[in-house]
Amino acid sequence: MDVEECVFCRVVAGSLASSRVYEDDQVLAFMDLQPVTRGHVLVIPKVHATGLADLDEQLGMAVFRVAQRVAGALRASGLPCDGVNLFLADGEAAFQEVFHVHLHVFPRTAGDGFRIEADWRVRSRAELDETAATIRSGITAES
Amino acid sequence: MDVEECVFCRVVAGSLASSRVYEDDQVLAFMDLQPVTRGHVLVIPKVHATGLADLDEQLGMAVFRVAQRVAGALRASGLPCDGVNLFLADGEAAFQEVFHVHLHVFPRTAGDGFRIEADWRVRSRAELDETAATIRSGITAES
Repeated sequence: MDVEECVFCRVVAGSLASSRVYEDDQVLAFMDLQPVTRGHVLVIPKVHATGLADLDEQLGMAVFRVAQRVAGALRASGLPCDGVNLFLADGEAAFQEVFHVHLHVFPRTAGDGFRIEADWRVRSRAELDETAATIRSGITAES
Repeated sequence: MDVEECVFCRVVAGSLASSRVYEDDQVLAFMDLQPVTRGHVLVIPKVHATGLADLDEQLGMAVFRVAQRVAGALRASGLPCDGVNLFLADGEAAFQEVFHVHLHVFPRTAGDGFRIEADWRVRSRAELDETAATIRSGITAES
């Protein structure tokens, strides 16, 4: 994707407005326009990466470090914040909407309206072991 | 908390069964007993930390690096996986249930039953700027 077509690249460049929370050479943190709760921050690498697959590992770690600091800042800020969620959507099927990798950090309070629904069921050890073996082979293939 | 009382410390120690996906000196990845989707992995620091506030930053970065590798492994594994979510719950208000910090990594496909509900509304720039300023002061207070 052309950097000029990526809204988060435009935020990094300053050609789109943003409410910035933190910035260093590699990472930018700014307010989500459509916050889940007040204080919802997006942490992004400044260099364009679409998702986890093309995100440099060291840069991913830097993004996470900033997210952890933002989480601490949210708790220290005086905003309503009894807990914090980190969320990352990698791919459209995972609810990614802007294809410049971003880590959501948002404060939580009881009754804030954020809910997750899923088909949680305890699985058998045999099934879990089989799935683990399948993923382990994927890790070997990766590295 | 006594390490012996923490279920994830017991998983690390091997006194509780787990289906392991990846392990190094600092980090362990294993299957969630109640997966959101097949392939749901938890990535944890081996040393006990309750949440983000008492998680060493370097260790947090190591956890994220493993999560990124697990995400790649899920995509390469042959399991149904058109996308991947990372999710971390820090504090009971954020849906944390086991108080040993853990990063969820789970594959996504269309129609997999995972849903998020929240009160998303576009906020004014003035409100976002004010909130950003409040959080920035928190970051200053932290570091």
